Amino acid sequence: MAISSHLEQEIYQQPQVLQTLLTSERPIIQQLVTELQKRRIFQVLIAARGSSDNAARYAQYLLGSVNGFLVSLATPSLYSIYQKPPQLQNTLVLGISQSGQSPDLVAVLAEARRQKVLTAAITNFSDSPLAQQADYVINLNAGVEKSIAATKTYTSELLAIALLSAELAQNTSLLTTVYTLPNLVEQTLTLNPEINRLVQRYCYMKHCVVLGRGYNYATAFELALKLKELTYTLVEPYSSADFWHGPLAIVEPGFPVFVIAPSGKVLPELQQLMQTLKEKGAELIIISDDQKTLELAQTPLILTPNIPEWISPILAIIPGQLFALNLALTRNYNVDHPRGLQKVTETR
Amino acid sequence: MAISSHLEQEIYQQPQVLQTLLTSERPIIQQLVTELQKRRIFQVLIAARGSSDNAARYAQYLLGSVNGFLVSLATPSLYSIYQKPPQLQNTLVLGISQSGQSPDLVAVLAEARRQKVLTAAITNFSDSPLAQQADYVINLNAGVEKSIAATKTYTSELLAIALLSAELAQNTSLLTTVYTLPNLVEQTLTLNPEINRLVQRYCYMKHCVVLGRGYNYATAFELALKLKELTYTLVEPYSSADFWHGPLAIVEPGFPVFVIAPSGKVLPELQQLMQTLKEKGAELIIISDDQKTLELAQTPLILTPNIPEWISPILAIIPGQLFALNLALTRNYNVDHPRGLQKVTETR
Repeated sequence: MAISSHLEQEIYQQPQVLQTLLTSERPIIQQLVTELQKRRIFQVLIAARGSSDNAARYAQYLLGSVNGFLVSLATPSLYSIYQKPPQLQNTLVLGISQSGQSPDLVAVLAEARRQKVLTAAITNFSDSPLAQQADYVINLNAGVEKSIAATKTYTSELLAIALLSAELAQNTSLLTTVYTLPNLVEQTLTLNPEINRLVQRYCYMKHCVVLGRGYNYATAFELALKLKELTYTLVEPYSSADFWHGPLAIVEPGFPVFVIAPSGKVLPELQQLMQTLKEKGAELIIISDDQKTLELAQTPLILTPNIPEWISPILAIIPGQLFALNLALTRNYNVDHPRGLQKVTETR
Repeated sequence: MAISSHLEQEIYQQPQVLQTLLTSERPIIQQLVTELQKRRIFQVLIAARGSSDNAARYAQYLLGSVNGFLVSLATPSLYSIYQKPPQLQNTLVLGISQSGQSPDLVAVLAEARRQKVLTAAITNFSDSPLAQQADYVINLNAGVEKSIAATKTYTSELLAIALLSAELAQNTSLLTTVYTLPNLVEQTLTLNPEINRLVQRYCYMKHCVVLGRGYNYATAFELALKLKELTYTLVEPYSSADFWHGPLAIVEPGFPVFVIAPSGKVLPELQQLMQTLKEKGAELIIISDDQKTLELAQTPLILTPNIPEWISPILAIIPGQLFALNLALTRNYNVDHPRGLQKVTETR
C-alpha cells in the first residue's frame, strides 16, 4: 500500500514526533512542575476545542487520579462572548491548541493573566497568540500538520500531559512507562494492513456510537471526531455510564458500536454493557488487549497486552486513526481536505 | 387532543411544579447561600448524569457569569471505579439527580464529606442515598415522575439553580424574573397543537444535530437526549463553536439541524453558523424569539419575546419536549416506557 496522503504520513510520523517531544520538552515541563509545587497549586482549568479538548479530557482523569488535581474544562464563551469570567484562584490555566489561534481560547488565558493566575500552553506554534499569553509554553514540535484531521498533534498533546503527570508525581516507574510509548506506537501501527481489510464491511455504515470510560473517555471522543471528519459518518461518543442513562434506547439489531476497552479498572463495567449490547444484537467493534473482551467483537482491533491503563489512550487511538483513514479511503474521500473544514478554526 | 400519557401530563404539570419549588425551597436555598458566603466559597463541583447533567451545564454558565463561580463537572469514575479522588478545597460539591440513587454520584458526595467539604443535593427524593450525603438538600417536590424521560424534574432543577444564583447575587431584579417563570412556561405550552402538526414532516427523520451555546448549551444537550430517548433518532448535541471544529463536515443537503437560538449575546455567532448551514442546504428547525432568526428556519418554533438570555433555557426546552413527545406519538412509540430504559439508572 503506497503512502499517498498527508494524513497517512502524519499518522506514521507519530513515533518520531513523540520521541522528539520527550527529549525537547522535558526541561520546560520540569520548570512548570517546580512552579506548581512552589505555589502549591492543585487545580487546573483547561481551555481547548476539537481534538485538543479530547486531550483535555485525558488530563482530567490522569492529573486527577495520579496527582490529585481537580481539573476543569473551561467554558470559553464566559470569557469571550459574555465577558463575565469566573474568579480563578490558585489555579493553573492551561490552553491546549494545535494552532494556538482561536480567539475564544486566547481570551481564557488573557483573563487568567489579568487575574494574575499561572498560565501555560501546549501548542504546535510557540509564537502563536495562545503561547503569547502563557507563562510556560510546551511546544509540540510535531512539524507542520498538513492534514486537517489532527493525529500526531493529538497523541503528542496526550504525551505532554502524561509527562507532566509523571514529573509531578516524581515517580520513576511512571516516567519509564512514558518513555516506552514511541516504540509501542510504532508497534501498534503494524495493524494498518489488517484494518485496511476490515473496514470493507463498514463501507456503507451511516452511523455508530463510540463508548469508553475513565482514561479512555478521551479516546471515545477522539475516535468519534476522526470518523466524523474523515468519513462523514454520524458518530456520537459516550461514557459507558452516560449511555445507560437514556441513549441505550437507540440500539437495535445490527447497530454498530465501537468500544474502547483496554484492560484496567473500567473494563468490568464495559464488559457488562457489551453483554447487554450483544443481547440487543448490536455489532461490536472492540479496541482491546483482553482476549475474553475481544471475543465479544464482530471486529476485534487488538492492542499490545500488559500496558498500564493510564497510558493506554495514547495507544488505543492508533487503531481508531487507522480505521478512520482506511474507511475514508475505501469511500474515496479526500482524507487531507474533508469537505467544509479548515485547519485553523477561529471561534469567538 | 386527549392527554393520554404520563409524559404529556408531566410536561403540563411544569408550571405548577415550578411554582411549588419557588415557595417551598427558597428558605433552604437562602441557608445554603449564607453558608457559602460565610465560608467564602466560589467554586462548585457538580456530580450528575443524564438530564441532571444537562442542568449542571446550565449551572456552569449561570453561576459562572452571574456569580463569578468556577463550576466544574465531576468525573465520577475517579471516585467510584478508580478510587483516586482529587483534592477538593474550598468547594461546594453538588449532586443533582432525580432519584438520588446512582452509586457513582453518591461516591462523589461521600468523598467530599470525607474531605470535610460542603455538600448539597438537588433531588426529587429527600431521603435518597445522595440526599443522605448532603449538608443541604434542595427537594424538587415535583411529585413522582412516572415517565422514564425526565421533563418536570429537568426544568425544576434548572429553576433551583436559577433561584440559587439570584439569591447569591442578592439581586431583586433577577429574583423577580425567576418568579415570572411558571407563567411563562404555561404560555409556552400553548405551542403543543402547532408542534403536533409540524412534527409530521420529521416522521422518517433518522438523525439530526442540535446546536446551542452559552446558557443554552444545556438546552441543546437536553433536547438531544429527549429525541434519543423518545424517538430513537440519532442526535448529537454541539456547542456551535465545537461544531465548526470538525463536525461541520457531516452536513449535506437536507441534513436536519435544530438550533437553540433565543435573543442574547451568543445569537450573532449562531446566526453566522445558520447562514453557513443554509448555504450547505441544511434543514433548520429553530427555537427562537427573534423574527429575523426564525426566517432562516424551515420549521420555526416561536418563543415569547424579551426574555433575558440567562433564564431562557427553562423556556427554550419546552418546545423541544413537545417536539420529542409529538414525534414519538406520530411514530406510535410508547412515550412512557422507551425500549431498553429504566427510570432509575444505577451506574458505578
